[in-house]
Amino acid sequence: MKRKFLLEEKDIPENWYNIIADMPNKPLPPLHPATKEPIGPDALAPLFPMELIKQEVTTDKYVPIPDEVRNIYSIWRPTPLYRAHNLEKVLDTPAKIYYKYEGTSPTGSHKPNTAVPQAYYNKMEGVKKITTETGAGQWGSALSFACQHFGIDCEVFMVKLSFDHKPYRKVMMNTWGAKVHPSPSAATEIGKKILAEHPDTTGSLGIAISEAIESAVHNDTTKYALGSVLNHVKLHQTIVGQEAIKQMEMAGDMPDVVIAPFGGGSNFAGLSFPFLRLNFDEGKSIRCIASEPASCPKLTKGVFRYDFGDTAGMTPLLPMYTLGHDFVPAPIHAGGLRYHGAGVIVSQLLKDKLIEAVAHDNLEVFEAGVTFARAEGIIPAPEATHGIATVIAEAERCKREGKAETILFNLCGHGNFDMKAYQDYFDGKIVKHELSDAEIQASIAKLDTPTI
Amino acid sequence: MKRKFLLEEKDIPENWYNIIADMPNKPLPPLHPATKEPIGPDALAPLFPMELIKQEVTTDKYVPIPDEVRNIYSIWRPTPLYRAHNLEKVLDTPAKIYYKYEGTSPTGSHKPNTAVPQAYYNKMEGVKKITTETGAGQWGSALSFACQHFGIDCEVFMVKLSFDHKPYRKVMMNTWGAKVHPSPSAATEIGKKILAEHPDTTGSLGIAISEAIESAVHNDTTKYALGSVLNHVKLHQTIVGQEAIKQMEMAGDMPDVVIAPFGGGSNFAGLSFPFLRLNFDEGKSIRCIASEPASCPKLTKGVFRYDFGDTAGMTPLLPMYTLGHDFVPAPIHAGGLRYHGAGVIVSQLLKDKLIEAVAHDNLEVFEAGVTFARAEGIIPAPEATHGIATVIAEAERCKREGKAETILFNLCGHGNFDMKAYQDYFDGKIVKHELSDAEIQASIAKLDTPTI
Repeated sequence: MKRKFLLEEKDIPENWYNIIADMPNKPLPPLHPATKEPIGPDALAPLFPMELIKQEVTTDKYVPIPDEVRNIYSIWRPTPLYRAHNLEKVLDTPAKIYYKYEGTSPTGSHKPNTAVPQAYYNKMEGVKKITTETGAGQWGSALSFACQHFGIDCEVFMVKLSFDHKPYRKVMMNTWGAKVHPSPSAATEIGKKILAEHPDTTGSLGIAISEAIESAVHNDTTKYALGSVLNHVKLHQTIVGQEAIKQMEMAGDMPDVVIAPFGGGSNFAGLSFPFLRLNFDEGKSIRCIASEPASCPKLTKGVFRYDFGDTAGMTPLLPMYTLGHDFVPAPIHAGGLRYHGAGVIVSQLLKDKLIEAVAHDNLEVFEAGVTFARAEGIIPAPEATHGIATVIAEAERCKREGKAETILFNLCGHGNFDMKAYQDYFDGKIVKHELSDAEIQASIAKLDTPTI
Repeated sequence: MKRKFLLEEKDIPENWYNIIADMPNKPLPPLHPATKEPIGPDALAPLFPMELIKQEVTTDKYVPIPDEVRNIYSIWRPTPLYRAHNLEKVLDTPAKIYYKYEGTSPTGSHKPNTAVPQAYYNKMEGVKKITTETGAGQWGSALSFACQHFGIDCEVFMVKLSFDHKPYRKVMMNTWGAKVHPSPSAATEIGKKILAEHPDTTGSLGIAISEAIESAVHNDTTKYALGSVLNHVKLHQTIVGQEAIKQMEMAGDMPDVVIAPFGGGSNFAGLSFPFLRLNFDEGKSIRCIASEPASCPKLTKGVFRYDFGDTAGMTPLLPMYTLGHDFVPAPIHAGGLRYHGAGVIVSQLLKDKLIEAVAHDNLEVFEAGVTFARAEGIIPAPEATHGIATVIAEAERCKREGKAETILFNLCGHGNFDMKAYQDYFDGKIVKHELSDAEIQASIAKLDTPTI
């Protein structure tokens, strides 16, 4: 009864896969925040090194992974792929369930997959300091680790809710030498403004992004880095799905359904895009499902239009599914999924019905997480439990329909830094929370950004 | 530049290795706590299932691993072996440094290697509940995980210091359904007695063992389990070193020095005993070094005599290096190393100069841990940092002597649940602490147990 499908270092992919090359409808261009006119790559130069900007706009199907990046990847990659025999048994389902496990990275999630190349390209172009935001702390930890490796300073704005929930994520970032602020903070003008208006706010990724951008733009050797949403971030994550395809082949199997949690889209993209390539190139019809929280349902209940990536409106306008850029989600424990918008590629794919999306409420996902931990022995991060809830729903459907389908999901991180969330669950403090349609419409109605 | 040496599930060893078969001087027999006469296996029957008692006393060189245990091992085993290229570079040493990484287990340490077979044999003999102690929380987590798998109730007495330092270890145990008490507790007579005498005590492993034994002995379907010290525990851990030998062969190398942290001895035994077998069987001269805290230096400064395994004197008398069974070590963060005695096999091996021991102070080990985390990307458990301090000392010796020796150590667990310890280190709260010779002599002088 084989459980684990392992690859060697030599199997680390040599290229990232760029799905834009294969998309029937390419994403619409970003617009200048003031003029609302399409912008070119140069507009991003104050924020990102040129090589990452090139990756943001390239239409090449494959982008080579530098040897130095593959070398650092080899600290934890390739990651294992598991057959979830025990979970199948607990669910009494005819479905075969597999998961790709990204929790074996130094920081315990998939985020170093993009943190390492981002730090690398910044280093190559002489950058001395990188600022960023973090929600759950996964991305901030990953960038701290990567910057430490290349000798770059790292400054992290951590959503206050997570800063309070997860003090040990901050210590982890400190271990790799990063400076960490709770966001909103008094370190930026936008932070001070929001603190004055909403002194009790638990923060949001949109606010933290605004602060990190503000801290980066005024200094030539300081750049900004984003842990999700953007095209180059999704590009870097495609090593996950590429490895998973090789591992599914080792298992003599291929998924009918691919599932991943959804915050900004990097985790979902990482696993699913290489499988979507099989749909494009080989005529397969693998279903790819994004799992989001019912309290932040941009894919299932948001609107497809131009919106800002941050709260203050400092980023270019992007064509995305959004709940409105000043939407502040409920303080759920899955900090990595508390983001108002979806990346442009995923948004276009959903618009074109090439992928699916589902939402799960907060209580359902913890029940799924504990079921998984008891069956498989790994305590999942709260973000990951959303994908597990979808897996369980699909496995139950397979049982009802008597179908032995193959389900693959991305266990994007462990929950070792999220035990307060589990404590709250065991203490009965986690309750159902679903955003009402009226609340969603009220948030979207405030938007004055261009429609599509 | 290969970093990782991976094995397949089929490479999980089929036998545990029993070093007693090869020892030139066998350990002296345990004595009855009251009569001081040698006891037979039956004396252990109230505490352990018969199959584990047989393993405790067997002189067979190999003990077969049941298929069901190997199947559960396959959730995380074989574990990876790494070449620490980055650490070598930071230390600028001619030494080659490798580490076996046991932090990939569900609970993040080597402890499930014995928790799983212990729970299995209890299950086979109809046991309904297992009680145990835990120091750092690693062992309690591991036994909770294993008991959950077999549907056995688990009750854990957690040393109060760790209970307070690491609330999330408790939540982890709860996730697998265990009941957890801070020790000393009001749930036992011995706990109540100690609380009455020392209301502010931070507890010790010796006290927690007494409580767990007291809770087990009065019920036919409740047994007790120990996470270190005993022969069968060390036996189970030998899968670590057996895998490591195969992996060193894959690397085309073989260690000159093998290093592991030392609490009760299971971690050290797990890695080193299979290498000591090469010394016995093949005439190799691999040095095996146990690393202990300077604040609990039983191997380097203790006395070799009969002593109890617990504070209350409920266990048989064992021939061991000890600081005295009522010694309460300083409240260092490495909770897993705060134990007054050493297992009998390791004690005999040290007495016979077949292994070595060194001690490191509390500040030195955290410096070593942060150096390792920054170089290799894994934040080590405080217990593991003791081994790393020895590795650094040996690598520096190699540099001084111009020798390209090969060093292997056991990175027995990650520090994800120990970030308060790192916080204290960064806040300057960790200070040098070394037990004085006078303190040690005072503790040993209180012993009235048989000398050897």
